[in-house]
Amino acid sequence: MTSRADRVEARLGDRDAGQLLVTNLVNLRYLTGFTGSNGMCLLGAGVRRFITDFRYVTQARAQVHGFEVEPGPQDFLEALREGWPPGQLRMGFEDDHLTVRRHARLRDLLPETVELVLAGGLVEAERAVKEPGEIEAIRAASALADAALEAVLARGLVGRTEREVARALEEEMRDRGAEPSFATIVASGAHGARPHAVARDEPITPDTLVTIDWGAVLAGYCSDCTRTFATGSLTEAQREIYQTVERAQGASLEAVKAGAAGRELDAVARDLITDAGHGEHFGHGLGHGVGLQVHESPRLARTSVDVLRQGNVVTVEPGVYVEGVGGVRIEDLVVVGEAGCEVLSSLPKTLRIVA
Amino acid sequence: MTSRADRVEARLGDRDAGQLLVTNLVNLRYLTGFTGSNGMCLLGAGVRRFITDFRYVTQARAQVHGFEVEPGPQDFLEALREGWPPGQLRMGFEDDHLTVRRHARLRDLLPETVELVLAGGLVEAERAVKEPGEIEAIRAASALADAALEAVLARGLVGRTEREVARALEEEMRDRGAEPSFATIVASGAHGARPHAVARDEPITPDTLVTIDWGAVLAGYCSDCTRTFATGSLTEAQREIYQTVERAQGASLEAVKAGAAGRELDAVARDLITDAGHGEHFGHGLGHGVGLQVHESPRLARTSVDVLRQGNVVTVEPGVYVEGVGGVRIEDLVVVGEAGCEVLSSLPKTLRIVA
Repeated sequence: MTSRADRVEARLGDRDAGQLLVTNLVNLRYLTGFTGSNGMCLLGAGVRRFITDFRYVTQARAQVHGFEVEPGPQDFLEALREGWPPGQLRMGFEDDHLTVRRHARLRDLLPETVELVLAGGLVEAERAVKEPGEIEAIRAASALADAALEAVLARGLVGRTEREVARALEEEMRDRGAEPSFATIVASGAHGARPHAVARDEPITPDTLVTIDWGAVLAGYCSDCTRTFATGSLTEAQREIYQTVERAQGASLEAVKAGAAGRELDAVARDLITDAGHGEHFGHGLGHGVGLQVHESPRLARTSVDVLRQGNVVTVEPGVYVEGVGGVRIEDLVVVGEAGCEVLSSLPKTLRIVA
Repeated sequence: MTSRADRVEARLGDRDAGQLLVTNLVNLRYLTGFTGSNGMCLLGAGVRRFITDFRYVTQARAQVHGFEVEPGPQDFLEALREGWPPGQLRMGFEDDHLTVRRHARLRDLLPETVELVLAGGLVEAERAVKEPGEIEAIRAASALADAALEAVLARGLVGRTEREVARALEEEMRDRGAEPSFATIVASGAHGARPHAVARDEPITPDTLVTIDWGAVLAGYCSDCTRTFATGSLTEAQREIYQTVERAQGASLEAVKAGAAGRELDAVARDLITDAGHGEHFGHGLGHGVGLQVHESPRLARTSVDVLRQGNVVTVEPGVYVEGVGGVRIEDLVVVGEAGCEVLSSLPKTLRIVA
């Protein structure tokens, strides 16, 4: 079986590069297993160098496989002054991660025979297609997050503040051995009309909508899910947006499979929502990849150029936000397959009343 | 009174720049008050532009003062195509923050009359000197963190795992309305010999050393403190390293005042520790600035070129880590004054037994 580094090495030809310098720590973790906060690796044909400073050498020797661990100075870019093969070499670097300052520093210390070439996104492209073990890790995070939410819902919503509910949910995830994968969103009443609302010190009232968007990170892998609940009886307008979102979510989920374009999938949900008169109330994309980061490739959005591949793990999360009425978002986390998708989120999506 | 933006504007001459583009979100918050995750500002003589995408416009109008809020596209660098004065302009950018890719994009879309010049660190230099209100915010975070630790210590240490203690401390901070400013370190026994140890699922044993390094973030401002406790009687070797660190911490604290060099202060502690035979066991710097970030300017270290100024808030945290014996670190957070410093950390530093 090829290693992750082997697969990234196979992509180097895309940039006409002989080696790749990986400085993005998430990419570094993906390729080498290293979870520390200071390190980099260099890969190419026959080259697997991992460099960290003295503080992390013991950790690196325990975590890193398939790379030769070199202790460097704390300013470990210095280690790149040496170790180059004779002749000219094009070295890719992550231009979407390296700062202008570090790039200038790198240029200064590299020998003239090494040319720096743009190579951002190569590791991310590989990360977007999950291995079976990664899918299991995401499945476990998702199951844990679902169980945590059920434990919170069992204690009711009405009368507790949004912040209390968010905090209780994060505690339930920690009790189960995970951390939140992002700051939990609990948005009720009129506040629900803001898609990225921060949980407030306001009590949740009866007869309104409450949107909860939460996720767990377990063994490095994230989950992401959203459900919207009713805390009693709803107005006709509230019920209508729930049904619209539920329909749009179901229809776009049906369309998810390898080969579908991110922009087409977004359109499936968006067209339905637009037909229901809410086109301008769906102010974000349909979804995004999830893995070591809670937002990664591919994107499902109007401006996406991505096409889904088997093994992508993505969210499908249309929403409708109406000033004065409230907001509804329903989000599932799914694994893309050849002919459809597998939904990892286990919670029902029909309107559920939690008082 | 001059605003923060006015003071940064006054520094533009240092880089011979007419305007400064601020993309680092912490710097953006410092200058404008904006706490969202997508935005930038441009400042210069008579220029105070704040640009964010549509999702954050309402929030920006509520939070941002002294800047004109412009809604931009989600890819808001686009907004910089326009709005330039006639003639040539040198625009500073944060080269220690902007990636190579965004820099190239920026160069592409700016008119030819605008020249990009390196200007990283200007806002950070201003941030290093705290206003009275900022010192009060840090003082409040520090007091909260101290109270949280006392609540945890009251329940004892022996028999609880490092992770349980870390988690309980983080919960106590959250109960008081704050968040941890970094992942809490609880390192006991032989594990204490690692300065950046992660809390483990190992129970804390009697008769050993336990180092706890924790902080709170409250209203955006961080605290940072470390204490080492004994869980019973100590060996002579353990007691000796405690006393050495206590002495080094006290001596370096005595030397802190405006005009002292970061490298000199580090030497005060390091010389004392070296004289005690532990020079090689103090493998990190003496301290660092604290504010909106838990690590910021100035640095107190062997390689520091910083000189302390009145209003700096810094940590003073020597440590000694001996393989097989354990580790001791004692850290206070202090405000630098003209003739000395004010210690914000309220907890005693004489060896305390918590079983």
